[in-house]
Amino acid sequence: MANRFSAEHNSICKLFGIEVPIIQAGMVWASGWKLAAAVSNAGGLGIIGAGSMYPDILLENIQQCKVATNKPFAVNLPLLYPDIESHVQTIINQGVKIVFTSAGNPKTYTPIFKEHGITVVHVVSSSLFAQKAANAGVDAIVAEGFEAGGHNGREETTTMVLIPAVRKAINIPLIAAGGIATGAQMLSAMVLGADAVQVGSRFICTPEASSHPAFKQKILEAREGDTQLMMKKAVPVRLLKNPFYEQISNAENNGADAAALNAILGKGRAKKGMFEGDLIEGELEVGQVASLINNIKPAADVVKELWNDYLAGVEEIVQSM
Amino acid sequence: MANRFSAEHNSICKLFGIEVPIIQAGMVWASGWKLAAAVSNAGGLGIIGAGSMYPDILLENIQQCKVATNKPFAVNLPLLYPDIESHVQTIINQGVKIVFTSAGNPKTYTPIFKEHGITVVHVVSSSLFAQKAANAGVDAIVAEGFEAGGHNGREETTTMVLIPAVRKAINIPLIAAGGIATGAQMLSAMVLGADAVQVGSRFICTPEASSHPAFKQKILEAREGDTQLMMKKAVPVRLLKNPFYEQISNAENNGADAAALNAILGKGRAKKGMFEGDLIEGELEVGQVASLINNIKPAADVVKELWNDYLAGVEEIVQSM
Repeated sequence: MANRFSAEHNSICKLFGIEVPIIQAGMVWASGWKLAAAVSNAGGLGIIGAGSMYPDILLENIQQCKVATNKPFAVNLPLLYPDIESHVQTIINQGVKIVFTSAGNPKTYTPIFKEHGITVVHVVSSSLFAQKAANAGVDAIVAEGFEAGGHNGREETTTMVLIPAVRKAINIPLIAAGGIATGAQMLSAMVLGADAVQVGSRFICTPEASSHPAFKQKILEAREGDTQLMMKKAVPVRLLKNPFYEQISNAENNGADAAALNAILGKGRAKKGMFEGDLIEGELEVGQVASLINNIKPAADVVKELWNDYLAGVEEIVQSM
Repeated sequence: MANRFSAEHNSICKLFGIEVPIIQAGMVWASGWKLAAAVSNAGGLGIIGAGSMYPDILLENIQQCKVATNKPFAVNLPLLYPDIESHVQTIINQGVKIVFTSAGNPKTYTPIFKEHGITVVHVVSSSLFAQKAANAGVDAIVAEGFEAGGHNGREETTTMVLIPAVRKAINIPLIAAGGIATGAQMLSAMVLGADAVQVGSRFICTPEASSHPAFKQKILEAREGDTQLMMKKAVPVRLLKNPFYEQISNAENNGADAAALNAILGKGRAKKGMFEGDLIEGELEVGQVASLINNIKPAADVVKELWNDYLAGVEEIVQSM
C-alpha cells in the first residue's frame, strides 16, 4: 500500500523531487553550499542558510551550489533578516526552486515566491502558526520542537507533542524538526505524523559544515543536560553551555529583563562562537540531541546512515507481526 | 520474529504479567484504587499513587484494589515521602507485588523490596540516574521526559532525546514516560527504544481518577503552551497555567530564589488544586500533552484505544513494505 513510510510514495520526496525524506536544516555559520550540495547529492534536500550571509555571500553560495549539484537544493531565509529584499531578489534571480522561510510572517513573501514558481516551506513551533502559514499558501510546514538548537518557540512544546498537534491542524505535508539525529528518531517522528524530518545538529558534525572545528569538537563532547533554552524574555535560543551561557544564566537568575540580556549578547556572538571557534565568549547554538552525536563523518554518510537505520526500524516492526 | 513490538514477546508484559505494555502513572490526588484497578482489569498495569496518601489511606487503597482486581497492580512510592518507613511496611505486609519508586535514591529500599520478592521499578529523568538505578538492582526503569506533568528533572531532556540515551545506558527493560497520550505517541516511544509506556495525564481524564471534576475539565480546555516547567530553583514541576502559576511566574521573572518560591507554594497547594478543585489558588500538575486530550472516558476505554491505535500504527508501517 502506498504511504508516507516508503520513499516512493512520500509527499515530501514528490514535492521536492528528492530520493529520501531527509532535509538538512539551514543553519547560521554552518550550512553553506558545501554542506547543502553534499546532502542533495546524497539524495536528501540540502539547504543554504542565508541568515548569516551578506547578499554577495548568498549569491556566491547559490552559484557554487548549482555547480556542485544537479539535484534540488533550497535556501533558508529568516524573514526578519535586515536586508531581506536583497536576499529575495537573489533567490528569484538565481532560479532557486525551494525556499524555507522562518522567524517572521509568511504572508508577505509567500505570494511573491509562488508567483515565480518557487516552492515555499515555513518553519513554526505551534499549531496556530502552522495554520496561519498554511493559510498564507505555503506548500509544506516544518514543525520544530523545544529540543531544537538555535532560535525556538516560547511555548516549549516538544517534538513528541508538537507533531501530532500540527498534523491535526493542517492538511499539507509536514516536516518534523527538533531532537532528530538517528534513524530511530526519524522513524519515531514519522510515526507521530510527519512526512519527513529536518536534521540540524547532526549535519554540523560533518567536514562539509563551515562551523569551526573547535565548535564541532565541543558538540561531540556534549553530554545530556549540556544545552538549555535561554533568553526567553528576549528571543529564546537553545545554547550549549559555556562561559557565555553562564553570563546569560546568571543574569536571568537575577531577574534580568530583555534589554539587559540583549546588552550581554551584543553583536557578533554567534559568528564568534560557531564560525571563529571562540568557545569562551562566543554563542554556541546546538540541539539537545548533541549528547547523542559522537563522530564527524561526511554528510553523505549521515544521510545514508539515517535512511538505513530508519529502514532497519521499519523492518523490526514488520518482523513483529 | 519475537520482539518488543508484539505483546506476547514484550519484556515488560512478561515482567509484570500484564497483557499490554501500558502502565498508568502513579499520580498524586488522582490514582487511588479505582483508577489502578480499572487499568489493571483492562490488561495494563494500574498504579496506586502513595505520594498524596497518609499511611491508613494507602492501606485502604491497597486492600480495596485487591478486592477490585485479581490482576497485577503496583504502588508508586516517592522515596522522599516523610513517613516512608510506614509506607514500605504497608506495601510489604499487604503483599504488593510491584513497586515504582521515584524522587530519591533507589539504593536504600531496593534491596529490602527485593528480599520480599517485590519487583522494583525506578523513575529517572537522565541516563546517569538510570545507570545508578540499574546498579542498585531495580528490575526496570521509567525514563520520564521534560513533557511530563508534575515533578520533573532539571536537565529538561525531552522524551525524543531521553529514551535513546537511556536505552544505550542500561540493559534492563525500559518504560517511556512524558508526552504520551495516544497510540501513535506510544508507538513513537517504542520506536525510540522503550519496551512499554507510562501514561499519566490521559488517565486523569477518566471517571475513575479521584481528581476534582473542575481540574479534569480544565485539562480538556488546555491548549498548546498552557503548561510550563516552573520552580526550577526549588523542585521543578510542570504546572497548568492559572492564577497560582502566574504568582510563581512573576516571582521567577523578578529573580526569586528557592526560599521565596517555596514560601509562595506553602503547604497543601496540590491538594487544593487537583483534589478540591480550586483552580485559582491551587497547584495544577499536568503534562504538556494535555492539549491533545479532549474527552473524559472510562480508563478501560483509554487502555483499549491506546492499544488499538498503537496496533493501527504498526499496521500502517507494515503496509508500506
